[in-house]
Amino acid sequence: MPQISFSRRLRRTPFSEGVEAAGVKGYTVYNRMLLPTVFESVEADYRHLKNHVQVWDVSCERQVELRGPDAAKLMQMLTPRDLRGMLPGQCFYVPIVDETGGMLNDPVAVKLSDDRWWISIADSDLLLWVKGIANGYRLDVLVDEPDVSPLAVQGPKADDLMARVFGDRVRDIRFFKFDMFEFEGRDLAVARSGYSKQGGFEIYVEGSEIGMPLWNALFTAGEDQQVRAGCPNLIERIEGGLLSYGNDMTDDNTPHECGLGKFCNTHTAIGCIGRDALLRVAKEGPVQQIRPIAIDGEAVLPCDRPWPVFADGKRVGQVTSAAWSPDFQSNVSIGMIRLSHWDAGTAVEVETPDGMRRATVQERFWI
Amino acid sequence: MPQISFSRRLRRTPFSEGVEAAGVKGYTVYNRMLLPTVFESVEADYRHLKNHVQVWDVSCERQVELRGPDAAKLMQMLTPRDLRGMLPGQCFYVPIVDETGGMLNDPVAVKLSDDRWWISIADSDLLLWVKGIANGYRLDVLVDEPDVSPLAVQGPKADDLMARVFGDRVRDIRFFKFDMFEFEGRDLAVARSGYSKQGGFEIYVEGSEIGMPLWNALFTAGEDQQVRAGCPNLIERIEGGLLSYGNDMTDDNTPHECGLGKFCNTHTAIGCIGRDALLRVAKEGPVQQIRPIAIDGEAVLPCDRPWPVFADGKRVGQVTSAAWSPDFQSNVSIGMIRLSHWDAGTAVEVETPDGMRRATVQERFWI
Repeated sequence: MPQISFSRRLRRTPFSEGVEAAGVKGYTVYNRMLLPTVFESVEADYRHLKNHVQVWDVSCERQVELRGPDAAKLMQMLTPRDLRGMLPGQCFYVPIVDETGGMLNDPVAVKLSDDRWWISIADSDLLLWVKGIANGYRLDVLVDEPDVSPLAVQGPKADDLMARVFGDRVRDIRFFKFDMFEFEGRDLAVARSGYSKQGGFEIYVEGSEIGMPLWNALFTAGEDQQVRAGCPNLIERIEGGLLSYGNDMTDDNTPHECGLGKFCNTHTAIGCIGRDALLRVAKEGPVQQIRPIAIDGEAVLPCDRPWPVFADGKRVGQVTSAAWSPDFQSNVSIGMIRLSHWDAGTAVEVETPDGMRRATVQERFWI
Repeated sequence: MPQISFSRRLRRTPFSEGVEAAGVKGYTVYNRMLLPTVFESVEADYRHLKNHVQVWDVSCERQVELRGPDAAKLMQMLTPRDLRGMLPGQCFYVPIVDETGGMLNDPVAVKLSDDRWWISIADSDLLLWVKGIANGYRLDVLVDEPDVSPLAVQGPKADDLMARVFGDRVRDIRFFKFDMFEFEGRDLAVARSGYSKQGGFEIYVEGSEIGMPLWNALFTAGEDQQVRAGCPNLIERIEGGLLSYGNDMTDDNTPHECGLGKFCNTHTAIGCIGRDALLRVAKEGPVQQIRPIAIDGEAVLPCDRPWPVFADGKRVGQVTSAAWSPDFQSNVSIGMIRLSHWDAGTAVEVETPDGMRRATVQERFWI
């Protein structure tokens, strides 16, 4: 099994020391930064996440900060989601598209104030696109990557753990809202959000130097709650239908193909750079779309490249994320399936590394 | 030692099958793609590279293609290097800068014709910056990532091996020039270039499906030359002063700080987006610069984060790449050192993971 070669280019995070002390066993690289993938085992981590509470180093969700009079205008140029009704204190999941309607990223936009936004990005250097657009359109806005590293607290006991560190007021944060909380004299944005379906928070840790103090405070406070270091869990995120940019979709795909049409208000998103292209897609509909797919047989091998999906002897799509789900006693997967075969219940075949498997398009994700 | 977790997001290449069969032992991730780092051992690979010939999968040097009437204009907007004298068939090493003069990438520009260019990129999603600029300035140009994956042939026997596959005409290619060569009915650009100081070529393999046929042809032709799979070698590239974007420099640095002032013709590079900022730097000079630094004592540990450099009790810079050099019997390293201490012969101290080491700023790189 090849090792990962560490270098400055695979950036460490403010929490790396804690992650290492917790015995991280696997990493991926995300936004040129280390993202843990396994602590005990993917299955043990999954079981623990669903029953207790975990602290996740998701610093790799880098922020693109927009600051200045044109910040809101620029933010709207980036996405077909209509942002006019968005208030400070809200987080919006926003598809980001280029002029052809191709997805460049699927981040969470955080509105700090009318003229200050963070874009909490998935895995692409969105900073460069945003800087290029701001420069080309001569906008009055500063665009850069601030020293902000998200730390997620996820799992059914997340509210209790967070309340011990930040006070009971954290319980009042509603889904995809944030409020400001004090830690060691700093005001930090804390949102009810995260890349799992188990509930929890993301703390936007501003200032690397308070990273480990906060990490340690959470572990001390949660000792009797069996708090553990964790990370986005492959099985749990597939069960829950949480897409991964770069895995389940790329810049070849429109938001509609990704099932993100509900986040597109293309008619009213005046100024969006991809609006013309997406008006066409919105009218005609996509010809392929993300679908949950149950794959028969024993546990599949890891999915490190697209697995072709066949039906009636023709290629009708591909699977891009897959894992064995202990809770559903089935292989759960995410695929992109053509219109002709995307109805729930359709029988297909998936070409996995150890052979062709029977599979079925599902009505909905597992959880 | 943590493992790397494979997924579609860490893209495989047209040569991955060959790389795996050759027994790759380590990977890094570069432009969201797998880049081998070790086959036998870093030191054995180094010795072999200096004596024989290696085939390197450097597909991660993705291409940004500019095509259309404004391609040359756009290319000049990206860099302070004056491109007016550049002819089709030439390759230019070009610093790419943003409006503040910060380095966004240090790629090789390949001029295919006046209206068609490839930018063979280092580790950042330069595609997004270029697309943003093209869109914002309403340029008449298509910008995308073509199906082109560079394969390097490096080492003292590279000419002989390449001649066996492509004919003796490859010997006539001059440094940083390219010409077109036929392989299985395809015309491929072959340049005399590469990320080592041992000489050799880079083949711009257009069309993934001919990747493994070409890989196999090179290994068959070079069997008696002890050809091996290789990769950019940490020791050799530091000895030779080949910088690594993301390690030795980032967007915080100007080209002048990186010692790339000789590739900047800022006065005449009319249209370059960072020109105003760089005219200032060109006049005043940088306050810190890349330097070769010899570090005393036994072999240093891997450099996975900046190592602070001190002198007279003050921090005067950092080391970002380091390795033990068997040929020079010294730790060789690359650092960014402040003006006050960058003269050759200056004694400094480097804080390595296993303690403070004495070190000396060098006049030049080792080879």
